[in-house]
Amino acid sequence: MQDDPVTQHVHDAARRARTASRQLATATRHTKDAALLAAADALVEATGSILEANRVDVDRARAAGTPENVLDRLRLDADRVAAFADGVRDVAGLPDPVGEVVRGSVLPNGLRLQQVRVPMGVIGMIYEGRPNVTADAAAICLKAGSAVLLRGSSSAARSNRAIVDVMAGAIAGCGLPSDLVQLLPSEDRASATALMRARGLVDLVIPRGGAGLIRTVVQESTVPVIETGTGNCHVYVDADADLDMAEAIVLNSKTHRTSVCNAAESLLVHADVAETFVPRIVAALVARGVTIHGDATFRAADPSVVAVTEEDHATEYLDLDISAAVVGSVDEAIEHVRTYSSGHTEAIVTSSMATARRFTLGVDSAAVMVNASTRFTDGGEFGFGAEIGISTQKLHARGPMGLTEMTTTTYLVEGDGQIR
Amino acid sequence: MQDDPVTQHVHDAARRARTASRQLATATRHTKDAALLAAADALVEATGSILEANRVDVDRARAAGTPENVLDRLRLDADRVAAFADGVRDVAGLPDPVGEVVRGSVLPNGLRLQQVRVPMGVIGMIYEGRPNVTADAAAICLKAGSAVLLRGSSSAARSNRAIVDVMAGAIAGCGLPSDLVQLLPSEDRASATALMRARGLVDLVIPRGGAGLIRTVVQESTVPVIETGTGNCHVYVDADADLDMAEAIVLNSKTHRTSVCNAAESLLVHADVAETFVPRIVAALVARGVTIHGDATFRAADPSVVAVTEEDHATEYLDLDISAAVVGSVDEAIEHVRTYSSGHTEAIVTSSMATARRFTLGVDSAAVMVNASTRFTDGGEFGFGAEIGISTQKLHARGPMGLTEMTTTTYLVEGDGQIR
Repeated sequence: MQDDPVTQHVHDAARRARTASRQLATATRHTKDAALLAAADALVEATGSILEANRVDVDRARAAGTPENVLDRLRLDADRVAAFADGVRDVAGLPDPVGEVVRGSVLPNGLRLQQVRVPMGVIGMIYEGRPNVTADAAAICLKAGSAVLLRGSSSAARSNRAIVDVMAGAIAGCGLPSDLVQLLPSEDRASATALMRARGLVDLVIPRGGAGLIRTVVQESTVPVIETGTGNCHVYVDADADLDMAEAIVLNSKTHRTSVCNAAESLLVHADVAETFVPRIVAALVARGVTIHGDATFRAADPSVVAVTEEDHATEYLDLDISAAVVGSVDEAIEHVRTYSSGHTEAIVTSSMATARRFTLGVDSAAVMVNASTRFTDGGEFGFGAEIGISTQKLHARGPMGLTEMTTTTYLVEGDGQIR
Repeated sequence: MQDDPVTQHVHDAARRARTASRQLATATRHTKDAALLAAADALVEATGSILEANRVDVDRARAAGTPENVLDRLRLDADRVAAFADGVRDVAGLPDPVGEVVRGSVLPNGLRLQQVRVPMGVIGMIYEGRPNVTADAAAICLKAGSAVLLRGSSSAARSNRAIVDVMAGAIAGCGLPSDLVQLLPSEDRASATALMRARGLVDLVIPRGGAGLIRTVVQESTVPVIETGTGNCHVYVDADADLDMAEAIVLNSKTHRTSVCNAAESLLVHADVAETFVPRIVAALVARGVTIHGDATFRAADPSVVAVTEEDHATEYLDLDISAAVVGSVDEAIEHVRTYSSGHTEAIVTSSMATARRFTLGVDSAAVMVNASTRFTDGGEFGFGAEIGISTQKLHARGPMGLTEMTTTTYLVEGDGQIR
C-alpha cells in the first residue's frame, strides 16, 4: 500500500489536512466567517473560469454519451455559481458549533466537568455528480472547524478543481491554510479506496451519491462512515385520513421533485378507504405522468397500472414511478415499511391520534411525517441552515446533518489536585 | 455465508432480537425497571449455580495454563455476583433515555418538529474476560430499549451462559421477551465474524477488550462500530506545576489500578522543573515497584530506569511500567501526545491558565484533565451511573458511554396537510 503513488498522495493530503485543521480548530468564528465570505466573493468573481472548466467537463461527458438529464446536473451557469456562493455566505451566517458546552456539572469531589463540542478533524467526502456539493461541503466543514478531502466524480473533475482552487485561494488570503480544502484525484477508484482506508489519518468519511457508491463505501471503509441519502420513502393513507389532504400529500411527495431522496417511492392505502381513494389517486398520479406499480386493487382502477413486484417495493425509483398496495391495518403498513424501507422518511395521513402514535413508534426511520409531505426531510426545511447530507444510519447522526453533526465532543475536567 | 450454520445461528438470533426489541421499544420505564430489578434478584438467588458454572470455567482455564492474574479476572465469588446484581439495580434507578426530546421547534410553515431519543434496536457486544460485563451490558441495553447479542470469550462461556439464562428468565417473568438478552456461541471466531458482518440485522457493534480484538472488529465489521478502551494516557507536568500535586497525580494515575484503560502509561516533564521533579518522581515510582522506561534525564536519576524506545512511547502497558521523557515546552508535550496517544485521556498539571488552555485545545483526546488524575475518566466518576465502555473514536460517542449513548434519535414532524 505504502508504495502505491495514489495512496501515498491521499495520505500526504490527509496529513497536510490534519496540520491545517489544527490551526483551524483554534480559529475564532470571526476568522472562519471572514474566510467563507471571501470564498463566496471569489467564487462569484471567478464565474468565468469556473464556467469555462465546466464547459470542458460537460463537452467530454456529452462526447462519452452521458444522457441529457445527467448532463443537466453537471452543467453550471452564472445563476448556479451565484446560488452556491450564496450558500457559502449562508454558512458564514450560522452560529459556530465549536465550543458549545453540551453538558456540564460539578462532581461530588469538586471536579468541574464540561462536555464541549470540538471539530472532527479531517473529513473525507466521496460524492457524485453536481459540482455544487464541492462548495457546500467545503463551507460546512470549514465552519465546523475541520479540514475536508473532496473526492468528487471524474466527470466533474475540472469544475471541482476550479471551485476548490478559488475557495482555497480565498481562504489562504484570510490567513488560514489552503490545505483546509483539498481535491483528491478522481481518474480511477484508487483515490476513493485510499481515502476510505486511511484510518487514523481521516476521522470520518461521508459518501453522497447513488446506492452503489454508498454500499461500496460502507463495505470497504475502515474509517468511520455516515451513510447518506438512500430514500425509499413511504406514504401511508390511513382509514381515518382526510382524503383531500391525502391526495395532496401523495402528489407532493411523489411529483414535487422526483430525483431527490425525500421523494415518495411507495404508497400504502388502508383497505377501508381503498374503494374511494384508490381510483382517485390513480387518476391523479396518472394525470401527472406517474407509472404506478400496483397490486390487484390498484390495477383494477386503471389499465395503465403495472403489476407490482417484490423488487418494486424495495426500489428507490428517483423518477415518475411509484409502488402501491392496499393494506388491512396500520400494523400491516408498519410491517411493509419495516420490510422495504431504507429508513429515510415515512409519512402517515390520519386524523387518529392513536394511529399516528402507533405508526410513529412502529416504523424505524430517520423521520416520520404525520399529515405532511415526505419532502420536508431536509436541513433547510428543518431550519438547520445548511445540510451536508441526510443520514440513514443510527450512529452519530440520523436525518438531515448540519454543522453540529460535523463535530465531536471532548470532556474537559478541571480540578485542584484530585486523585482517586 | 447463508449455509454456514454459525452465521445462520447468529442471523436467526439477530432476527429474534429485532422482534423482541420492537416490543421493548414501546415498553414503559416501569416495565423495564421491574424487569431489571427482577433480574438482579434472580442473579443473587442463583449465586450457587452461577458460581458452579464459573468453577468449571476457571478449572478449564487453569488446566489450559492460563496465568493467575487472568484467572482472577475470570473468577466469581458471592461478593462479585452481588456486586453486579447491584449494578443492575443501579441501572433500574437511572432515568429512561428513551423519549427524551433533544430539540424541538415550530417551523415557519406550522410544522411541529421534534427530535426524539429512540432505542438503537439490536446491539452486539464482543468482549473478553470478566463475566460481569455480561450482566452490565444486558442491563444497560435493556434500559436503553435495545436487544443485545452477547459474544463473550469462550473461557467464560459457562459463567456467561448461567448469567444470561438467569437474566433472560427473570425478564420473561416480567412479560418482556427473553430474546432481549441472548448469548452467542463462542467456540470459534465464526460467531464474532458473523455478528460484525450482520449489517441490516444489527445496528451497532461494541468491542470491549484488548487492542487486538478492537482492531479486528474495526477492520472487519460492516456493522457500525464504536471503538472502546485502548488507553495510552499521558500526564504532563508543566513548568508551572505544583510539584506536590504533580507527584500525587502521577502516582495515582499510574499505580491506583494498573490494568484499566484510564491508567497513565506515559509521563512528560517540562525541562524547567526536570532537575527537581525527575529524581523525586523516579524515587516515588520505583518505591511503588514501577519500571520506568525513560530518556537520558530519567536514566541519570536512577540506575533501574531502562532506556525508552519509540515502541514504549506507543505502548499501553496495563502494568507497573511507564514511559517517561523530558520536553522543552507545552507545545512539545502536545506534539508528543498527538503522536503516541490513543486518544483516551491526557492530564496536565499546571497553575498557568494559558498553558492549561493551550494543552486542552492542542491535544485531541476524549478527555483532558487539568490538575486531576487520569483515573477520573469513568462513567461512574462522571456521574453517568452506568458505563458500557469508553469510546476512543469521534463518531457518535466519545469518552465514557452511558445510557444516552446507547440510543439514537428520530425526527417526528406533525402537520395538518403541509406540502412543498
